[in-house]
Amino acid sequence: IIQVSYGYGLFTGGLGLHYGAERIGATVLPTSIGNTKRQIELMQDLRVTAIACTPSYLLHMGEVAEKMGVSIKNDTLLRKAIVGAEPWSEQMRSRIRESLGVDAYDIYGTSELSGPLFCECECKQGFHVWSDLIYPEILDPDSQEPLPPGERGELVVTMLQKDALPIIRYRTGDITAIKDDPCPCGRTHPRLERLSGRVDDMLIIRGINVFPSQIEHALLGIPEVAEHFMIEVDRKGALDDMLVRVELAREAFSDKISDLMRIRQHVEKVLKSSLNVQVSVELTEPGTLPRFEGKAKRVIDKRLI
Amino acid sequence: IIQVSYGYGLFTGGLGLHYGAERIGATVLPTSIGNTKRQIELMQDLRVTAIACTPSYLLHMGEVAEKMGVSIKNDTLLRKAIVGAEPWSEQMRSRIRESLGVDAYDIYGTSELSGPLFCECECKQGFHVWSDLIYPEILDPDSQEPLPPGERGELVVTMLQKDALPIIRYRTGDITAIKDDPCPCGRTHPRLERLSGRVDDMLIIRGINVFPSQIEHALLGIPEVAEHFMIEVDRKGALDDMLVRVELAREAFSDKISDLMRIRQHVEKVLKSSLNVQVSVELTEPGTLPRFEGKAKRVIDKRLI
Repeated sequence: IIQVSYGYGLFTGGLGLHYGAERIGATVLPTSIGNTKRQIELMQDLRVTAIACTPSYLLHMGEVAEKMGVSIKNDTLLRKAIVGAEPWSEQMRSRIRESLGVDAYDIYGTSELSGPLFCECECKQGFHVWSDLIYPEILDPDSQEPLPPGERGELVVTMLQKDALPIIRYRTGDITAIKDDPCPCGRTHPRLERLSGRVDDMLIIRGINVFPSQIEHALLGIPEVAEHFMIEVDRKGALDDMLVRVELAREAFSDKISDLMRIRQHVEKVLKSSLNVQVSVELTEPGTLPRFEGKAKRVIDKRLI
Repeated sequence: IIQVSYGYGLFTGGLGLHYGAERIGATVLPTSIGNTKRQIELMQDLRVTAIACTPSYLLHMGEVAEKMGVSIKNDTLLRKAIVGAEPWSEQMRSRIRESLGVDAYDIYGTSELSGPLFCECECKQGFHVWSDLIYPEILDPDSQEPLPPGERGELVVTMLQKDALPIIRYRTGDITAIKDDPCPCGRTHPRLERLSGRVDDMLIIRGINVFPSQIEHALLGIPEVAEHFMIEVDRKGALDDMLVRVELAREAFSDKISDLMRIRQHVEKVLKSSLNVQVSVELTEPGTLPRFEGKAKRVIDKRLI
C-alpha cells in the first residue's frame, strides 16, 4: 500500500506516482498534500508500507506524528519512501532512516517530459535511465557540447516514445553526470548521478519550481510596488519557507499601517496565485533594496539540505 | 477535452471523473481546484469542450473570466458541464445556460460507495441508475419501510459489483424518489428524481459534506470556547461561505483584542483542519447564543439555490 502525498492535479508528481503504483499492482492511497494529521491517521489505519512525497514533507510528517504521540518508526508499517521533487542529500537520507526507520529512494522527473522519469535502484548509486525510452545527454554549460560519461554538465533529454508531443533535446537545466560503469544491481541501463545544482536561478520550494523571473513578472503588474525584490529561502521545521522583500513604489508609500497591510496581503495573494506556492512578503521603503549592475543576485538560500 | 475541476486526492470527485473520462476516451485536463485564473487560461489554450465541477464553482469561473475580459460563452469552446457534489436547481441550470452558454448535467455520487454514481442523460429527467451494478431502494424516513416508485424517501443503495468492500443497504441520507416510467432517451434503467434534501442535518459547503456534529466535536477540544455554536451559510458571489458563531468560555473571556484574535484564529484553524473547508469564526460573549431544549436548530442556510 503506497500513500501518494504529492499534489494531485496539474503537478505530475501525484498522478504520475499514482499511475506508476497502479501499474505495478500496488494499492494507492491518494492523500495528495495537506492535512498532515489525517495523513498520519490514514497511514496507521490502512497499514501503509510505502510513501511518495518530498523529503522535507516526510520529515515534517515525522514531527507532526511525534506531536500526536505517534512514532512513525514504531507505530506504523511505513518502510520505504520514494522522495524527490526537490534536492536532498545523503545526510537527509540518513536522517530519514534514523528518525523514521524509513528507507528513502531518490526519484527524478519533470512535468514537461512525462512526470516522474528516473528512480534509484536498491543500490542507491544514481538514477537508472530507461535508455529504450529516453536518450540523455550531458552538455558542457559553456560550450554547449556533449560531455563524456563522468563529467558534470546540463542534463538534456530526448524522449523516444512520445507520439503526440515529440520532445527532442529538452534542456532540463539540472546539473548531473552520466555513469556508465555497471551497477551492482545487475541492471545494464546507464545511470545519472544525483543532482548537484541548476544552470539557471530556479528555486525549488516545497516541490514547486519557482523562477525569480516569475516573481519579477508578477510584481510588474502591481502598481503599488517597484520591481526590486530579494528572496530569502529557509526551512521552518522541515518545510521550506520563502520570504520576498519588495520595495514600495514612491507613490504608494504611506505611514498608515492599514494601507501597508492591505498592499502586503495583495502582493502575497498575487504571488501565491502566480507561483502556486505560499509566500511571505515584507514591504520595504522605496530605494532600500540592493540594485545590481551585472547579473542580479536576488536569492539568499539558507536551507541546509 | 474535459477539464476536471473537482478536488483530486481522497475526495472521489476528481479521480472518479478522471477515470470515467479516460474510460470513454476523452482527454482529461486535471486542473483540480484553485487558481481560477489559470483554469480559465487553460480552458482557452487547450480548447476545452466539457468541464466537471460544482455548479457554484462553474458560476464563479464565469465571474472571474468576466473580470479577465473573457466571455466563457464567446471566447471558449466550453459547451457541456457535469456538475454535482452539491444541491442545485433548475433555475441554476438556466443561469448556467444563459450566462455561460453551457449545457449542465447533474451527477450524483458518494465517496463511501464508489465516487460518482448516477448521471442525467440528455433528457435531464432524473439520474439513470445502472441497475445491473446498483440496487436502489427508497425508505420511508419514519417507518423505515421501502416505498413504491414515485414516493419520496431516503435513498438506500446496495452495490452489486464490489468484491473487496461489500456494501449492503447503505443509507445515503439523501431524499429522492424512484421513477420507473420510460425515459424519452430510450434507456430502460430506472431513474432517481433530483435530490430534495437530507434526512439529517448535513450541510454541503463547496462540495464538502459538513455535519454540525463535527463542529461540536472540534469545539469540545478547545478549552477557550464553549460548545454552543450557530452556523450561518451564505453565498458570497457564486461560492458558499460558512460563518460559525462560537461562545467564549467564561474563563477565556478577555477585553484584550489580541487575545480574542488569537483564539479566533486558533478556532478557525482547528475547524478548517477538521472539516476540510474554510470557515469564518465569530466569537460571542459567554451565554449569548441560543440554547435548545428539543432538537437544536443550529443552522441558518441563506443560500438560494
